[in-house]
Amino acid sequence: MENNNQLLAKKVVDTMLEKDWFSQWLGIEIVELKPGYVKLKIKIKKEMLNGFQIVHGGIYYSIADSALAFASNSYGIKSVSVETSISHLVSCSEGEEIFAETEEIFSGNKIAVYTINILNKENKKVAVFKGTVYKTGKEWFPA
Amino acid sequence: MENNNQLLAKKVVDTMLEKDWFSQWLGIEIVELKPGYVKLKIKIKKEMLNGFQIVHGGIYYSIADSALAFASNSYGIKSVSVETSISHLVSCSEGEEIFAETEEIFSGNKIAVYTINILNKENKKVAVFKGTVYKTGKEWFPA
Amino acid sequence: MENNNQLLAKKVVDTMLEKDWFSQWLGIEIVELKPGYVKLKIKIKKEMLNGFQIVHGGIYYSIADSALAFASNSYGIKSVSVETSISHLVSCSEGEEIFAETEEIFSGNKIAVYTINILNKENKKVAVFKGTVYKTGKEWFPA
Amino acid sequence: MENNNQLLAKKVVDTMLEKDWFSQWLGIEIVELKPGYVKLKIKIKKEMLNGFQIVHGGIYYSIADSALAFASNSYGIKSVSVETSISHLVSCSEGEEIFAETEEIFSGNKIAVYTINILNKENKKVAVFKGTVYKTGKEWFPA
Repeated sequence: MENNNQLLAKKVVDTMLEKDWFSQWLGIEIVELKPGYVKLKIKIKKEMLNGFQIVHGGIYYSIADSALAFASNSYGIKSVSVETSISHLVSCSEGEEIFAETEEIFSGNKIAVYTINILNKENKKVAVFKGTVYKTGKEWFPA
Repeated sequence: MENNNQLLAKKVVDTMLEKDWFSQWLGIEIVELKPGYVKLKIKIKKEMLNGFQIVHGGIYYSIADSALAFASNSYGIKSVSVETSISHLVSCSEGEEIFAETEEIFSGNKIAVYTINILNKENKKVAVFKGTVYKTGKEWFPA
Repeated sequence: MENNNQLLAKKVVDTMLEKDWFSQWLGIEIVELKPGYVKLKIKIKKEMLNGFQIVHGGIYYSIADSALAFASNSYGIKSVSVETSISHLVSCSEGEEIFAETEEIFSGNKIAVYTINILNKENKKVAVFKGTVYKTGKEWFPA
Repeated sequence: MENNNQLLAKKVVDTMLEKDWFSQWLGIEIVELKPGYVKLKIKIKKEMLNGFQIVHGGIYYSIADSALAFASNSYGIKSVSVETSISHLVSCSEGEEIFAETEEIFSGNKIAVYTINILNKENKKVAVFKGTVYKTGKEWFPA
């Protein structure tokens, strides 16, 4: 049973990533994936910097938003983001690796809430994200 | 005087944009700029889509975050984002033009708050963003 | 038709308020009510102050949260709050009157988003609130 | 040294609570207090219920906002709330005890970020709160 859930999670996220051109541009790698959980990695490239030559806030948000989508859809039920927030704590530079790790705070019938930590290689929080999703109830792969 | 403020706003944002590689990747154009206000435009390209072939949430956030940075720095005093949130309302597709328009809700000694509407060509809100910045007090171009 | 919607809005909010002991403790008065819109008023009493002798942040939030509940339920369909945020801008003191006025930013099938301005008597924003609700689809007064 | 910090934290929070009429109305008890951390408790009374006879959202927010103020001021430096958000997860009823426990996510020179879990007696999250404060730099008790 657990194995089936794991296979379903992988199948969903592979399907999502296959045509997710922006996540591909970000260079997202999946470090770990379980039903309701994902840890992602990206490497900062020059095109991700803002005018201060540090990582643009949109990059942290984007990896977190992808992590929210993957984690919340990984049960095989389509979920859509309704509200998200992010606090920017520490700046990062070109060449650094950053990680987005999800934590499922709450999962109800219709709504689920995740916090996502954005971490640098030293495991320091560089940003914290909170996301609320609506569970549509539609299956990804109906039998 | 008003003219000087306008020139300063333009000088700050030009300087920020000049080396803002990510805003350049987004293809951000400045539609209108005044001290404390900016309206930006981008055109959705294929690399901005997620796995559902609609615009990735990170794109709306990124244009809003750039707008927040430009509007809040346009007075000539360096400001940094401390907290931001965004609600995703309506999906957009490849080829569409979307706009980010700021509204300064509050400006105190140390903190300012902006709401930013993300609009499509029909002026429909596709996302709403709120951002809080800390005013460092440091001038962009000290005399 | 419009008249029926107005009557339904009033019936819903009267029913909600009738046993809403906390809103009664707050002394909430309805200044104006329409389907999807409400303007509320309270007068600041001593028990609403924090240790700095200004209004406790929880009071602004509470009147906004009541306004969100009244506006989003006023169509006759039960809605529940899923995510809310508030920025505190200006402090208020004992004896002042403050107002909460809703604006419906978005209304979809399942999700609606409201911004609520908290205003003092001079119509100055003292706090800004954003709330997201889930529409359960259940009618308040089924035929 | 650690002892002095602990005494300072207690002195600050005692001073804040002494004239905090709203926290007193809420019946807030301090379960645990350390520099940068506090755990509070309240017991739900009838006046805290909304029209559905469950706890009004403003009550969860209010205990969290008090916890944010106590934890962020407990170092002896005045801090003020700039942005806060809360997600309502599980409803509570009259007579229940609920707790607010802070976690300091980030503490910089000017800005600090806290997450606060609102828990019931079974340690289940009933709401999650995030708060950002601005550190004014002013001491509570200058030498």
